[in-house]
Amino acid sequence: MQVNTTWCGKRNFISECPSGFEVKMDATENYGGDGQGLTPMELILAGVAGCIGIDVTMLLGKNLENITKIDIQTEGSRREEMPTSFTEIKTTFIVEGKIDTQRFWKAIRLGHKKYCAVSASLKPEITYNLILNGEEIPENAS
Amino acid sequence: MQVNTTWCGKRNFISECPSGFEVKMDATENYGGDGQGLTPMELILAGVAGCIGIDVTMLLGKNLENITKIDIQTEGSRREEMPTSFTEIKTTFIVEGKIDTQRFWKAIRLGHKKYCAVSASLKPEITYNLILNGEEIPENAS
Repeated sequence: MQVNTTWCGKRNFISECPSGFEVKMDATENYGGDGQGLTPMELILAGVAGCIGIDVTMLLGKNLENITKIDIQTEGSRREEMPTSFTEIKTTFIVEGKIDTQRFWKAIRLGHKKYCAVSASLKPEITYNLILNGEEIPENAS
Repeated sequence: MQVNTTWCGKRNFISECPSGFEVKMDATENYGGDGQGLTPMELILAGVAGCIGIDVTMLLGKNLENITKIDIQTEGSRREEMPTSFTEIKTTFIVEGKIDTQRFWKAIRLGHKKYCAVSASLKPEITYNLILNGEEIPENAS
């Protein structure tokens, strides 16, 4: 897989991707940018959410029909020192719909272990939480 | 840093990022998607390019004024087995302008080691190549 990225002046870059879509990046003013695009570190957190999200929707199969909402929050903790890489990524699923709680947890677990190529490419530990119909559901709860 | 991602049906997700920008993701048809957005793995390669690109443009300082083009190709090799994570990311800078070759290499090296938070968050080895004014410049060449 190859992505081609072009410098557009200052800290501005645009990436052309095999999907045919583009993504525009910029640094914040602290780093000499104009804040006119996504920051590269944001792309990592979006990628984690999108990847596990795609895997979970795939693994839910027919059960997905009973789901009305899936929000995924990805919260990255970073090193204080440079490089300020991610040390941990906390991923919270906020879901509404009619589904067995452990059925959903199983999809998260299997998605993470077997399918999620983004998570498997990352160094930081990735943890998961599930809030289903307003209630936090611990993993392995009956 | 927190990114909020919303499921938009099938394999479609949209992430809202702290920068104020959004990124739309989708799976290819193989994975039940419609190919209506970036794939999460593309975001990783874009992020690598954007991050080292921002660092290099920052480290070049005044020298950046003599640069007319910076293209960055990020090519990711992936595992055959699932999860198909990246095993290596080859990063090629294609640069035009008037700059000392080792000055540019120094910016790449320092950018990678000290600043690039995306690279430092990733497991795969990241390698660099530099093509300056049409000529491949090895690292440490005099």
